Amino acid sequence: MSTVLVSETWGEHAAVLARQAAASGAGGSVGRVELRVLDVATPASPLRLQRGGVLERVAVAFETYGELNADGTNAVLVTHALTGSAHAAGVAERDGELGWWDPLIGPGKPIDTERFFVVCSNVLGGCYGTTGPTSLDPATGRPYGPSFPRYTVCDMVEVQRRLLAQLGVRSLRAVIGGSMGGMQALEWAVSHPELVRAVAPLAVGARHSAWAIGLNEVARRAIMADPAWAEGRYPPGSQPAAGLATARAIAMLSYRSFDSFEERFGREKRAVGAAADGACASDGEVFQVASYLAYQGEKLVERFDANTYLHLTRAMDDHDVAAGRGPLERVLGAVRMPALVMGIDTDVLYPEPEVRELARLLANARYERIVSPHGHDAFLIEYAQLAPRLREFLADDRAA
Amino acid sequence: MSTVLVSETWGEHAAVLARQAAASGAGGSVGRVELRVLDVATPASPLRLQRGGVLERVAVAFETYGELNADGTNAVLVTHALTGSAHAAGVAERDGELGWWDPLIGPGKPIDTERFFVVCSNVLGGCYGTTGPTSLDPATGRPYGPSFPRYTVCDMVEVQRRLLAQLGVRSLRAVIGGSMGGMQALEWAVSHPELVRAVAPLAVGARHSAWAIGLNEVARRAIMADPAWAEGRYPPGSQPAAGLATARAIAMLSYRSFDSFEERFGREKRAVGAAADGACASDGEVFQVASYLAYQGEKLVERFDANTYLHLTRAMDDHDVAAGRGPLERVLGAVRMPALVMGIDTDVLYPEPEVRELARLLANARYERIVSPHGHDAFLIEYAQLAPRLREFLADDRAA
Repeated sequence: MSTVLVSETWGEHAAVLARQAAASGAGGSVGRVELRVLDVATPASPLRLQRGGVLERVAVAFETYGELNADGTNAVLVTHALTGSAHAAGVAERDGELGWWDPLIGPGKPIDTERFFVVCSNVLGGCYGTTGPTSLDPATGRPYGPSFPRYTVCDMVEVQRRLLAQLGVRSLRAVIGGSMGGMQALEWAVSHPELVRAVAPLAVGARHSAWAIGLNEVARRAIMADPAWAEGRYPPGSQPAAGLATARAIAMLSYRSFDSFEERFGREKRAVGAAADGACASDGEVFQVASYLAYQGEKLVERFDANTYLHLTRAMDDHDVAAGRGPLERVLGAVRMPALVMGIDTDVLYPEPEVRELARLLANARYERIVSPHGHDAFLIEYAQLAPRLREFLADDRAA
Repeated sequence: MSTVLVSETWGEHAAVLARQAAASGAGGSVGRVELRVLDVATPASPLRLQRGGVLERVAVAFETYGELNADGTNAVLVTHALTGSAHAAGVAERDGELGWWDPLIGPGKPIDTERFFVVCSNVLGGCYGTTGPTSLDPATGRPYGPSFPRYTVCDMVEVQRRLLAQLGVRSLRAVIGGSMGGMQALEWAVSHPELVRAVAPLAVGARHSAWAIGLNEVARRAIMADPAWAEGRYPPGSQPAAGLATARAIAMLSYRSFDSFEERFGREKRAVGAAADGACASDGEVFQVASYLAYQGEKLVERFDANTYLHLTRAMDDHDVAAGRGPLERVLGAVRMPALVMGIDTDVLYPEPEVRELARLLANARYERIVSPHGHDAFLIEYAQLAPRLREFLADDRAA
């Protein structure tokens, strides 16, 4: 078990990646990677959304690592979480950043780019290059903002399916992702069993719980309560920063755990503003945990869009892999492909019993527990535990 | 274990009380009770606060049940939680409401008013009759609002001590309370061992954790982000309702549990506003859990004050029973009186290991586990489990 208390969300992701790369076993880097963009919907072939909307233009931002084989059957789709992006591995051409799952993807790494053609794309409705609320609505020439049509995890998968078809992928060796990425993996397994040979949903349940919906709800309330939100019609560059920061702070609590906060912050305080003096000393201090949550909020504001946050969390809340398909037991029982389901013992957002239940209902699943003090975020931290399990899962010949 | 999914915070408290009264064993009602008020600080004997402020006038609102014995030694102090009041038992003279711990307090009940003189007072800084941010500042003739001086759990206890002295209480048979009430009970045990013979802190730790501070912090952020907050200078009747409601919604999540939300709400939806129609049907619905959280927020806004919420949660965050007293082990190890510490197996706010640790460090404590799907709020719900433990604890002759 790692004792390094860092991760993307601790704001020290590069340090984690560097330190954990070794722990995840042998393997090299995919090197410098470029974000590419392809159109997957056009007026001639629009994207009809599950909830009734239509998008006449959809561009998808994506990265690929490794080479597609001649018959187009060695692709692995890696799917990202709520505030993630297509940059899963390697060093971004644009800004030099390491991908969010770099220790797991590369030559000789568990998701081995010498064997697999790995694809990661920004989800439909995201704000990292794929068409979403920050994109221009061709009908008005202005950003969609709040009028971006509602979409679901199912629609995200359809966009990925179109992208993969354009790339020449004929079937997927596996779809792998955590949290919202796990929802996409599950949706792939249920809706396209003919295209997917194995699936690895991590730290996620079969449908979004009332608890998780409640947490998203209060985060959305925080955004919408910010007067700068302006019913979603804020000008570019003037988003509801305070509201989005509070939403992130709420989410951060659910991504971590009692123990990780206690270990890292305890009751430590730090001075704020001017030097604390005499009688007001106590008021010139804040708890480190408060300062940390504020910092995490500010950081998200710099890199994410409030309307996108609202839309994506609604899509997560709508996640129910059995919706419209029959009883959950039957829907998941019909998924015959090998599945690797990993849960985290300290996850408060998707508690282990929920994840274990998902594994139980899938016809051919193996459940693996990640032991970590870090809570939900362990799927972005505990590479030493994730790596051997993914390596073994992808070595399995049953689905090769 | 109760399977009735109701409580104060489910908005069905009366129903709980009625149903659970039977489960808590024999016992009658204390009948109609009146809220009384006494001054415990005057310009001649001001209240000097731990953090340096001074209050020249402090009035305390309180209720009592049962009779004080001749030597003033049969009093039990019951201490309330964050949004609680002095109305712990019986039927309020003013509005007919049942007290928040009515099944536990009364003739023949575990906190037996035929044996004990039970006192419950609204805490210093509260908004149910005791001097707090909504009170008029004698210096300005306007409500204190944000300028109410910062106070601590220690100050709450000093106000209670003064009240009890005025009532003729010479020593306390026990101090009993959950959550913030438990902080007061602990502070009593540590600061006034000569006045207290037994203590029962429920669902609380020895000091506020980084996790609990973080939850309070995001709740405060929600309040302060509301433009109606106006740096705390909102006019009476125009408080930051949206912010306070969101703060409450955040807190509600931490008072409950994954399982209780799942059991009660699952993925149920309800229509909102005008009848849902065709294409927009999905947008005309909200999840029940979202509706519930909104409702709980609105209900709190009707009965609580935002500045008071900010102040009280800061006092909770400052809770550290060892602060300024030495190592925690030594401070709690010096508490020789019998202690009953109860934790709740599903409490996410004060997780059971934290509560158990408190019991371990106290010299003479018994730990009891409350098994409940309801999370932290179980201390306001699980009367059938609380009652026998409190009854036995108070029957114990060691501290009689």
